[in-house]
Amino acid sequence: MSREKKIDRLREIDRQTQTLGSIVQLLSWDQETGMPPAAVGGRSEQLSLLEGMIHDNTAGEEVGELVGELCGDSTPELPPGALLRGAEPDPDSSAFLRTMRREHLRAVRIPRRLVTEFARAQSRGQAAWISAREKDDFAAFLPHLQTLLDLNREKADAVGYEEDRYDALLDEYEPWMKASTVDRVFDEMSGALRSLLDRIMGAPEVDDAFLYTDYPVEQQKLFSRQVAEAIGYDFSRGNISESAHPFTIRPGDDDVRITTRYNPASFKSAIFGTIHETGHALYEQGVDDSLKGSVLGQGTSLGIHESQSRTWENMIGRSSEFWKHFYPGLCELFPENLGGVSRERFVQSVNKVEPSLIRIEADEVTYGLHIILRFRLERELLSGNLPVADLPGAWNDLCEELLGIRPRRDAEGVLQDVHWSMGAIGYFPTYALGNLYGAQFFAALKKEEPDIEKSFGSGNFSKVREWLTGRIYRYGSSRTAGELVHTITGEDLQAKYFADYLETKYTQLYDL
Amino acid sequence: MSREKKIDRLREIDRQTQTLGSIVQLLSWDQETGMPPAAVGGRSEQLSLLEGMIHDNTAGEEVGELVGELCGDSTPELPPGALLRGAEPDPDSSAFLRTMRREHLRAVRIPRRLVTEFARAQSRGQAAWISAREKDDFAAFLPHLQTLLDLNREKADAVGYEEDRYDALLDEYEPWMKASTVDRVFDEMSGALRSLLDRIMGAPEVDDAFLYTDYPVEQQKLFSRQVAEAIGYDFSRGNISESAHPFTIRPGDDDVRITTRYNPASFKSAIFGTIHETGHALYEQGVDDSLKGSVLGQGTSLGIHESQSRTWENMIGRSSEFWKHFYPGLCELFPENLGGVSRERFVQSVNKVEPSLIRIEADEVTYGLHIILRFRLERELLSGNLPVADLPGAWNDLCEELLGIRPRRDAEGVLQDVHWSMGAIGYFPTYALGNLYGAQFFAALKKEEPDIEKSFGSGNFSKVREWLTGRIYRYGSSRTAGELVHTITGEDLQAKYFADYLETKYTQLYDL
Repeated sequence: MSREKKIDRLREIDRQTQTLGSIVQLLSWDQETGMPPAAVGGRSEQLSLLEGMIHDNTAGEEVGELVGELCGDSTPELPPGALLRGAEPDPDSSAFLRTMRREHLRAVRIPRRLVTEFARAQSRGQAAWISAREKDDFAAFLPHLQTLLDLNREKADAVGYEEDRYDALLDEYEPWMKASTVDRVFDEMSGALRSLLDRIMGAPEVDDAFLYTDYPVEQQKLFSRQVAEAIGYDFSRGNISESAHPFTIRPGDDDVRITTRYNPASFKSAIFGTIHETGHALYEQGVDDSLKGSVLGQGTSLGIHESQSRTWENMIGRSSEFWKHFYPGLCELFPENLGGVSRERFVQSVNKVEPSLIRIEADEVTYGLHIILRFRLERELLSGNLPVADLPGAWNDLCEELLGIRPRRDAEGVLQDVHWSMGAIGYFPTYALGNLYGAQFFAALKKEEPDIEKSFGSGNFSKVREWLTGRIYRYGSSRTAGELVHTITGEDLQAKYFADYLETKYTQLYDL
Repeated sequence: MSREKKIDRLREIDRQTQTLGSIVQLLSWDQETGMPPAAVGGRSEQLSLLEGMIHDNTAGEEVGELVGELCGDSTPELPPGALLRGAEPDPDSSAFLRTMRREHLRAVRIPRRLVTEFARAQSRGQAAWISAREKDDFAAFLPHLQTLLDLNREKADAVGYEEDRYDALLDEYEPWMKASTVDRVFDEMSGALRSLLDRIMGAPEVDDAFLYTDYPVEQQKLFSRQVAEAIGYDFSRGNISESAHPFTIRPGDDDVRITTRYNPASFKSAIFGTIHETGHALYEQGVDDSLKGSVLGQGTSLGIHESQSRTWENMIGRSSEFWKHFYPGLCELFPENLGGVSRERFVQSVNKVEPSLIRIEADEVTYGLHIILRFRLERELLSGNLPVADLPGAWNDLCEELLGIRPRRDAEGVLQDVHWSMGAIGYFPTYALGNLYGAQFFAALKKEEPDIEKSFGSGNFSKVREWLTGRIYRYGSSRTAGELVHTITGEDLQAKYFADYLETKYTQLYDL
């Protein structure tokens, strides 16, 4: 078989894998948006059948042989940057091949027994976590977390790593990223956030009470939809539905859906949630047609994904210029809530900074501290330095150290997030990496287009969207996160751009 | 391998096939209820991948060998009744084996090339039909119908038949049914319907104008949901959503969904549509747990399915007793529409009989004539006696003969239904068979429980539902339609029960 034939065959197998994967996405979307409750058992059977097929495809001998012949059996995993060439998404299939190889190796290295045990522990762990959080009973969750931690160690050892066991886990969510890099940028970020937070806490408090009045849900829906459309969400290739926790999902190449939730008592939740998810969706909808149906046809890492949701939500959606355009329409929709509230006060309020216990409610400045807390603790757990039984105390101490407040109950502390109960260790840092990537990209954009923010004020979002699409979205996973950072900004990932962005924004907002 | 082991293995393969089938159902449900328009290409790729897998499972060598060894290679297909034994759904796996054998033989007899050609012709035919109907241009649809007809002939010959080529097609929708039986019962039915219709046309016309006033959609939703719940739809194992054409679908054993549509200008559409679909759903939700996940775990034929939707919609849902219970609540929801309308007039109006051109808007009396029209024409088409080019004229002539009115445009005549454009020949008769099965079952019920209708008046629907579940629903497909008719009523299918039911009902309603 010629090299071209082999690549074609690999693409054919991959296409089937991706189609099965997109069906999994639809099943998951449905499960969160309206599936009848009693259907849950049947749904897990459907999901496990498809996921088994995907695993068999990816780990299969045929893929192994093709990948071996095409990449060379002894080729090491290629470092980011090594394949950097060309302005087109994947002109010579090299990104396709390295990604197929990467996926294949991960799949064959993890034994099927471990996959099954992991899945069982995840589903038990999640159920135990739900009940433990309700009852504020960490002890009931402890044995599950211990099991999940042990299985994660086993998984990391099966996958393999060079420097740090944590790298093998992190790599699942943020390919090619190393814990040492996260350490470096989080250390930089941590000092900047703490210092800015201290200064903000010294400034007069913002009165944002009007945000928590009764906002009619129908109008919230209307406005969320208007904003999503205005910033470029393509409704012919997606839709918005409701779920308990907002998410973006891709049940097809031309089917990128977002969900949101409407809380009549809080304006911020639906609108900023929608902008956030629209940011994820713009990334997926912006992938080049040539990559559709392949393993490269989606976002390259969770961190880059999060950079886009946060760029749209925070850097664009909470900017003063953005509301210059949208605030008059918003006031017309909610005259009772916003009568007498100036645009300046509105913008200040949606950017209000205040240390709080719950990560998902945190503002831009304190959010990173919530992540540092989790990142440090999960590394200590994994290394064995921190016994699981000591975790709640360690959480509370570190929370107090970083944020200046201490949880009174584990439900608002160590039990607040779902991630660990699903066995996801190495996931949390990607949220904060997203802020760093996003700010570094945005700084590069502003260097080229110093007046870009003015375009928001006139309701023109195509300029920023086209820049992001041209530099990031179109490449799907054909460029790694590191390669994107290098090609766009010319340097390694740095925390200083995010720190600078916050410094400028909040100095002005709080008149520091 | 022991016989038990072989049956277990066959059940295991079947379980996977059914799981894939339920995923197909979810993809179809989503396609009709909110999938973004541009996703249609990706969706057909997903569907064809899964349907290919299902076909490979069913037609596979392993199933062939197991079925051969377990049923004997030379065993003819078993006639209905032959396996009749036991009060439990499938105590000795005999229904399971004959059904697996039947499905396997159908799957291997139709060559893969024909399956592919058929699928392509269906999708082209449907697209051509949509545009032809819009433009009232039968000529544009003609070549597609010709192709689909030719492919149906080829399919029938591949599947095989004894008496009539049409039997091989009918058998796909109504297993074991023969065209000769349909001929017999339709002839009986036709005379009764015509004679009743003539007498009704001689009676004073019912003034049902109040049904076409503006009924607020939110209240329609509320009421439809109330009725579905009252008659026994289990919302923990299903939900109601909206689609252009109402349907019932089963994306899981514990997931039977219905759809409806709300037309503010017409009250009947949503409410009777909902009761109709709830009837289908009660059948599926009533299948015995022991059959779940197997090929026997769903309704046994389209005709029996339709008997249940029509029993609930018409025999129960349009009865005077039914509205004794629901009418007061309905008037509270729609005071402006129903103020001054007596219950008697309301019941007369929702049962108004009037020959019309469009099948899906037809009343109980004329509906059967619409089906006879289609059944006769598709048999003539299949036999070659009627050239496709002569179809529109033949349609109009027969319509005038049966219903006394003649379409002025093909869009309200031969182009009105989707079925032929999808290559479904042999499907239409199942609608009218449903009326016959339903009335024959209901007559048996009334023999046992002469006062059953009184229970509707007090809002008690569990009695009728339990009877139907005990005799029909629980058996899923483990009893054929013919076996159900025999065990429940002790005789062959007859049209007289339906004729008697209509006679009694309309004599009273129209004071004939």
